[in-house]
Order: sequence, then structure tokens, then C-alpha cells
Amino acid sequence: MKTRFLEQEIKYDGTQLAPHWIYRNFRIQGDAVAAFKGECEVKLAEMVDIEDVLNNEPIYSKSMLHFISEQFNTGLAEGVFRQRLLICIIKEALEKRGVAVQRRGDDLFVNSKKLTVSIATKSLTSVLIHTGINIDADGAPVAAAGLTSDLGINDIEALAKEIMICYSDEIDDIILATTKVNGLWK
Amino acid sequence: MKTRFLEQEIKYDGTQLAPHWIYRNFRIQGDAVAAFKGECEVKLAEMVDIEDVLNNEPIYSKSMLHFISEQFNTGLAEGVFRQRLLICIIKEALEKRGVAVQRRGDDLFVNSKKLTVSIATKSLTSVLIHTGINIDADGAPVAAAGLTSDLGINDIEALAKEIMICYSDEIDDIILATTKVNGLWK
Amino acid sequence: MKTRFLEQEIKYDGTQLAPHWIYRNFRIQGDAVAAFKGECEVKLAEMVDIEDVLNNEPIYSKSMLHFISEQFNTGLAEGVFRQRLLICIIKEALEKRGVAVQRRGDDLFVNSKKLTVSIATKSLTSVLIHTGINIDADGAPVAAAGLTSDLGINDIEALAKEIMICYSDEIDDIILATTKVNGLWK
Amino acid sequence: MKTRFLEQEIKYDGTQLAPHWIYRNFRIQGDAVAAFKGECEVKLAEMVDIEDVLNNEPIYSKSMLHFISEQFNTGLAEGVFRQRLLICIIKEALEKRGVAVQRRGDDLFVNSKKLTVSIATKSLTSVLIHTGINIDADGAPVAAAGLTSDLGINDIEALAKEIMICYSDEIDDIILATTKVNGLWK
Amino acid sequence: MKTRFLEQEIKYDGTQLAPHWIYRNFRIQGDAVAAFKGECEVKLAEMVDIEDVLNNEPIYSKSMLHFISEQFNTGLAEGVFRQRLLICIIKEALEKRGVAVQRRGDDLFVNSKKLTVSIATKSLTSVLIHTGINIDADGAPVAAAGLTSDLGINDIEALAKEIMICYSDEIDDIILATTKVNGLWK
Amino acid sequence: MKTRFLEQEIKYDGTQLAPHWIYRNFRIQGDAVAAFKGECEVKLAEMVDIEDVLNNEPIYSKSMLHFISEQFNTGLAEGVFRQRLLICIIKEALEKRGVAVQRRGDDLFVNSKKLTVSIATKSLTSVLIHTGINIDADGAPVAAAGLTSDLGINDIEALAKEIMICYSDEIDDIILATTKVNGLWK
Repeated sequence: MKTRFLEQEIKYDGTQLAPHWIYRNFRIQGDAVAAFKGECEVKLAEMVDIEDVLNNEPIYSKSMLHFISEQFNTGLAEGVFRQRLLICIIKEALEKRGVAVQRRGDDLFVNSKKLTVSIATKSLTSVLIHTGINIDADGAPVAAAGLTSDLGINDIEALAKEIMICYSDEIDDIILATTKVNGLWK
Repeated sequence: MKTRFLEQEIKYDGTQLAPHWIYRNFRIQGDAVAAFKGECEVKLAEMVDIEDVLNNEPIYSKSMLHFISEQFNTGLAEGVFRQRLLICIIKEALEKRGVAVQRRGDDLFVNSKKLTVSIATKSLTSVLIHTGINIDADGAPVAAAGLTSDLGINDIEALAKEIMICYSDEIDDIILATTKVNGLWK
Repeated sequence: MKTRFLEQEIKYDGTQLAPHWIYRNFRIQGDAVAAFKGECEVKLAEMVDIEDVLNNEPIYSKSMLHFISEQFNTGLAEGVFRQRLLICIIKEALEKRGVAVQRRGDDLFVNSKKLTVSIATKSLTSVLIHTGINIDADGAPVAAAGLTSDLGINDIEALAKEIMICYSDEIDDIILATTKVNGLWK
Repeated sequence: MKTRFLEQEIKYDGTQLAPHWIYRNFRIQGDAVAAFKGECEVKLAEMVDIEDVLNNEPIYSKSMLHFISEQFNTGLAEGVFRQRLLICIIKEALEKRGVAVQRRGDDLFVNSKKLTVSIATKSLTSVLIHTGINIDADGAPVAAAGLTSDLGINDIEALAKEIMICYSDEIDDIILATTKVNGLWK
Repeated sequence: MKTRFLEQEIKYDGTQLAPHWIYRNFRIQGDAVAAFKGECEVKLAEMVDIEDVLNNEPIYSKSMLHFISEQFNTGLAEGVFRQRLLICIIKEALEKRGVAVQRRGDDLFVNSKKLTVSIATKSLTSVLIHTGINIDADGAPVAAAGLTSDLGINDIEALAKEIMICYSDEIDDIILATTKVNGLWK
Repeated sequence: MKTRFLEQEIKYDGTQLAPHWIYRNFRIQGDAVAAFKGECEVKLAEMVDIEDVLNNEPIYSKSMLHFISEQFNTGLAEGVFRQRLLICIIKEALEKRGVAVQRRGDDLFVNSKKLTVSIATKSLTSVLIHTGINIDADGAPVAAAGLTSDLGINDIEALAKEIMICYSDEIDDIILATTKVNGLWK
């Protein structure tokens, strides 16, 4: 899986969660994860999470670290497992920085304050994942924590790169793990 | 997924990682995870991890908490993702008990000492996972930590049940997560 | 699979055969089958059956018992098998009420008169099935029979619930049947 | 799917439910269903149904009409749906001969007496199905009905051929049904 | 797989690469390959190959032999393998006519001049393939060869039919090849 | 896909076509293709091609260039497509050396003399392919051609390496081709 930290800030409004968005905009072809900083505002019309739409819960954050990943030739169920792994890896990267993090499904919390949003869905040829981590949690619609505003983490780019490399390495390792075991006859 | 803590101690020698072992022995049919305590000794002839066989690394532990899970109608790649999720959940259960744990792939470490062994493989109709957590690490062939011998955790059964329930719940939640998202057209 | 009989009458015009229609409208998430009574009028522009479009055969029935089922994480071929099973179960529910029914693929007939319409198709994340059973066959474009108008069946809601429970139970039973067999080596 | 009625009687002892049994013995390659008459005696060691093994229920019938089907490039879950369809088609063939039949999953009953046995399982490259219909139910270990002994059906070969042709035609029809529908975007 | 040579000329503009185009227009249902002659002009807005769009490379050819194939119940990766096989078979049909052809992926060349364009993509229920072979290469945007203009081949219809029959036969043969092998246990 | 030319001669007797043979013997893990020279003698008991067994056609060649490929996480049908691609690439490598080759399915011929044998089959976790090209065709049971004995090709190792690199590159290219296309909605 290719990784790329995008230097420019991009406001995430949901339209970035689209098939080939990484390829079209940054010429990175194939399985990839990209990260960037930016405001987050997803209106109901752009939300892929129907639960949030039904609950009338649009998403807003003043500043987030966003990850977009597109992974081809897999189904949605495996795609959600791949999303959960990304969440676990984010948690572990924060732990290395001394932050205690709680995970509930695809959400991360610090001191019961919500740190992340995440979704995984399907296109005709790929699975797409978005995960956003609050950088500045001021003005969030729920009790929220931010990497910089609450946890004192300022090396956002380094954090992003570390997470992407761990994630890419572990996906490779998982596929490799399927190639080293005897099947079981009985 | 059904869960069951087996009261009796069982020595794990690799033959428990077999299709329908849970069903045949405990009449629990379908996707399931079972846990039990017992010695662990897997000889090279019974190992499914070819890497360990090639490296001539048999497995031994005086006392372990073992998990065996069988999950049907899925492939091996997704099976390894399901294994990694179990490892993350074990790590989180230990964190709730105040233990700092490091994960490297499907291994857990405490203070650089190895806490677990794990493998996932395939039968004709299922994926099978074994994960063992050292209870007493004395005599292990590598630098190892044990739940009781090193971490002061004595409520092995409670820990096992909590892990199994979290795991079963999250697998259900992941499948449910595939049913609530709009697909992406473009 | 969840089941739900909808009390209100709904005119079926084809727009109900849509991903997450059950979830969006009735908050029932995941694999589900819902039933309701109502007129049936599907214009060519809304038909998913291209054969009917090519033959210029719109669908009309004054009053039908409709079933909509959405089932996730499966492909279209298995989806058509799941549709055929629903048709067989409807036939069996009518037999319990003393009605002799003939099945030809996904169509049911009583005395050579057409009792049902049905289709199965695919969305990005699910298989969707519609089956309608004539309640009142007056004015149908082909020789048709109706549950009430021809067969004297007035307990439409009880019939619908019985069919949905049998269907849900048998889908569960089929998945369970995959978990109890030895694979064959040779 | 190819169909073949085997003239010779064959005692079914479970070893016929094997990958490529039809191909090796009768040179019929690919998806196929074969039928033959013969005694049925499956000892516990040969049973693929672990439930029957656990319940210590070997299978015996003095004379049965047997169907063996092997279908390639499909999974076990779809294989069980394909088995259920075969059972429904057998039921319908008997109804054409004036026999009222009740189906419970993969079992058929006449007046609460068991008419059939059936199993579906998986090999490395195929799904395999066995279904046996009692011809002579004398001496069966449970309350059983037989085609000839109880239902007065003597045209066993004609019945077998009709069932195989209906089954083969419907499998073709189901695959064709996947090729005529518009997918659903929203 | 059904094959059909369409007598009328059709200008290929990309809209022919659509699910059920063969079925809707020519009443050929199921897996099929159709061929026709006609101009080729695919504007950027109609291109499915994002690489060509990013490189601003619209497709034009004054006259081409076009193949459209739709194949159901398979994924995109296998679809690309099916496309490559079609390309190999085209190469072999030209070799029988004495033309030396070089293949690079899904492109064919004669004396380093480009002979073909090709793409494979996915719809909700099928894989779709387009391959066009230049008949008259005059005015092509790159160095190109044409069947008639450069290679002296005038029997376009015979060539098309031969290619389609070889392709259809080999796809059948490949599926049959999956049904004649012992699986490997160890 | 990893590639490896094995310097030592190995007699191919069918036991090399086994899951993880490359990994166990040469420590090359994951998708791989290996080549070696050696006699070829496959007795009926070791043959995976049931057609050859039924026809009583054991395989013998005094000296062959052998390719063994193991590819994980794919099914047998796609595996046969992957085998056919290998055959096409071998044909193309010989054409570069001035040899005209005819392909019939998975067989190659030179002047109607058989040059190759090949088979593809399935293990629990992988697809396995063997292809052998005669080096010295003397004593073959059918009219056969050999690379050295008939075609004057002596650079067997160079040929093998070229074929393996082309094959590995094209498999990568095919997967990449699945990541660059718009899906088709209608």
C-alpha cells in the first residue's frame, strides 16, 4: 500500500471519500492511504453513514488530521476489519506518545471525550475508508478531545506518517500471514 | 458468535486447532470462541505455522489461557484480520487492568517480554484461530511475561469471559457496520 | 434476519426496491424482510427486470401482499437462490391452507392462473428481493388468481407473518447447516 | 448441468459422496447430477453430518433412490441453497403424482413419516450433495415412508429423470436470472 | 458464451460499454461477446480508463473491428485475466494469417505500430470488456497499424467470428479445467 | 510475485506440486514462481489431472524446464486463467527467439509436436501451477519437440528467467489494471 502525506490543507466535506480520489488528484495508483490536515464539515446530503443521517448528526470539526484509504479487490466486510485495524494502529501511535486511549468499535476516546470519526464503505471496484482525528476540538458538537488542543501533540505530520507506515506494513504482514500456514484437514 | 469458558484444564498440543473441535467436544455449533487454561506444548509435527517449523521453534508454556475460535463462511485473509482484532481486544482488556501492552502484529509484549502466541489458518469450511496468553511464564523458551507470574492478574476466568464477549460483540458490530452505509457511485 | 409486518398500506411502484429502504423508513438495520399490503404499479422506467422492459410488460395489480427483503454480504447468484426459497416457502404456506400451488421458477400459479410477481437484484452492498402475491386479482393484465378474490384467504397479515418467520428461520438453518459437516478430502 | 440415470444398482455407503466420483466412474465431467437405486447404509465413520455422528444416528434404508450432485466453483452456503432447491423439486415431482408432501429444511415427510435423507458438503474444488428417497421403507430406524411401499410409485427411473431435468433446468434458469436485471444505485 | 457478429456498422463512442448493452439491443442474454465494425471516437467524458483521462488521451480510429463482451458473476481481477486471454487469442488469429504480432499487456503491436485498444471494467452484476482492432489506421493519434490498411486482411467478418469462437471455446475449456483435478492436501 | 531459478537439477515426479513447496525448500514466502531443470516422470498415483489418470497417460520426459508457481488468496477458476497467461508468455518468449509456436489451451506445439505439459490445481490456501517444457524430447510417449533437441535453444536459464520476470510483471500489471477504471453505473 502506498502512503502519502499531502502538504496542503484540504477541507474535508465528504466528497473526498470517492473512488479514485487519491489517484485522480495525486497520481497515486492502487491500494493507498493519504493523510492531510483541514477543517471537517460533512452535511447530511454527503454522509455515507445512514445512521448519522437518520439521527440528524452532521459532522463538524475546526481542524482534523484526515486519512483517506482506498483498497481494491476486497469486500465491505473485510473493509470494515481493515478500518478497525487502522483505528487500533492510531490508538497505538498515541500510546507511544504517552496518551491513554479507549476504543469503542471505530471510535477513539480520551478521558471519555471523542477524538475521532470514521466510516468505511464500498464502491464498484474498491473499499474506501475515512478517519479523522481532531487536532483542535473547540466547537465540536459533542464532548471532544483534540491532538493539539487537549493532548499537546504538535507533530501532526510525523504522527500521520508513522500511522500510515504502520498501517501499510501491517496490511502487507497480514497478507503474508496467509501464505505461511498449513491448512487443516481434520 | 457463541462464547464458552471451559472449566476443565486442557493441555494444548495443537490437536485442538481442528475443524469442529468446539462442536464435537462441547456441542456448540456455528461461529464460536472457547477459552480454557492449560499447559501448552506444540511439537513441530503439529505446528501449522511453517515459519516456526523452518526455524525449529516449538512452542512451550507451563500454563496458558487459551482461546480457540472457529468461524465459518469466510476466507483466510479475512480470518487473519479477525485474529488481529482478537489480539487488539486482549490488549485492551489488559489495559483496563492497568497493564501497558505493546502489539507487534499478532504478538503482545509487556516490557519487551512476550506474552502471547497466536496463529490463524483455514479448513475446508472454516477459519480457525488459536491464541494463548502466558499465565505462568517460568521456563518459556524466550523472554516471556505471564498474567499471574508477572502482571499480578489472577482472575483468569473473568478476563477470558470479558475478552470473549468483547470479541463476539465487535464481530457482530462489524457485520452490522456493513449494513448502514451508502455505497459510492463516484 | 429481522421480520416486520407494516400496518400501513403502501403502493408498490418499484421505488421500494432500493438499498436501505427498510432501514431508512422503519429503522430495521441488517438482513431483513418486511411485508405490507397495497396496490402494485411498476412502470417500465422503474422496472429492474430488463426482460419485462424489452417485452413491454409493466406490472399492475389492484391489491397485493408485498415482501421486500434486503440481505447483505452475498452475491446475486446466491440472492436468486434465496429468492427461490422464499417462493417455495410461500407455496408451502398456501398448501397448509389447502391451496394447491404450482411453481415455475420464481412464479406461483393456482389453476394455471398467475398468483405472484418476483425479482431479485443487486446493490453495491446487498441483494434485494421483491415478491408480490395478488390479494385481489381483478383487472390484472394476465390471467391471475388472488388470495382473497380466488382462494378465500382473508388472514393476510397472519399469512405474511408466517411466511416471514419460516423464511427467516430457514435462512438461519441453512447457514447453520454449513457449520456441521466434515469436508471431503477424497 | 449434466444428468445421468445409472442403470445398475449401487449400495450407497457414503463413499460415493466424494469429489469426482461421477467423473471417475461414469466419465461425466463438470457440474452433474446422477441417480441410481440401491440399499443405503452409512456407518458413523463415513458420515459427513457431524450432528448425526454426535447423536449416534447411522443411516439405513433397504432401498432408496439416490441422487449425487457435484457442482464446481461455488461455496458451501450457496451449496446448501442448491440442496434445498433439489428438495423442493423432489417435493413438486411427487405432488404431480398426487402425493402431499411436507418439507422441513432438507427433509421431506409424507403423513409425518420421513421420506428422505440429505446432506451437502464441500471438497477443495466443489460442493457435493447426496439425497436419498426411500423406495421401500421397511426396517428403517425411524417412522418412514417409501415411494413404492407407501406411495404406490413404481416408475422410479422416470421420477428420477424428471427430477434431474427440472433441477438442471432450474439451476440454468437461476444463473440466467442474474443476467437480466438492472443493478440498483439508490 | 454466446457470440454474434453484428452486420450493421456502429460508431463506438464508449456508450456501448454498458451493462446489458448486448441484451437490450440484440436480445442476447447471459455471457456474450459481440463484434461489429465502425469508427471509434471516445471523448474524455466517456472514458472508463482514468489513466487515459489523466493523460488527456482520447481515442480515435477511422475504422475498427470492435468486440464487446459482458460476463456475469465474476470479479474485476478475473475480468482482466479474461481480457488478456481475448488479446492473446486475437494475436493467435492474426498469426494464422501470417502476421507477426507483439503483445504488451492488453495492447497488440505490429512492427511497433499500435493495432488495438482495450479496457475491462465492472458493473454491479458483470464485467465488461471492449477491444478494438484498427481496420484503417489513417489519422490515428499514435503510430498505428490497421488490419486492412497495413496487414492486407480484408475478411474482417471471418476474422471476428473466428476470434469469438476461439474465445468462447476457451472460456468453456477453462471452466471445465477446474472440474478435472484432484485438490492438493499436502 | 517472487521469482527464482534453482541451480540444482530436480527430478519432477509430481510431489513438487504441493502447498508451500517453494517456501519450505527455498524460504521464498508468498506468491512465487520457481524454475528448474530435470527429468520428468509422474506416475498415475501422483497425477492431479484425473483426465490423464482415466486415459492411463503417465507423463515422461528425459529433460524439461519446469515452472512451479504458488499463488495465494485466489480461486481455481482464476488460477486456470493465470496458468493460461503463463502459457501465452512462454509462447511469446519463444517467438522472440524466432520459434513459431501454436497454443491449444494449456498446451504448446511446434510443427504439431508437443512442447509442454501443464496443470493447475487448488490447495486449501493457494492455487498451484506446474508447467514443463521439453528440453530433450527423445523418448517422449507422444510426438514431441524439445527446446534444445529440436529448437536449438541452449540458454535455458536465461529463457526461464525471462519468462518468470514477464509473468511476474504481468500479474502485477493485471492487478494494477483493476485500480484505474471507472465502474459502470448504466
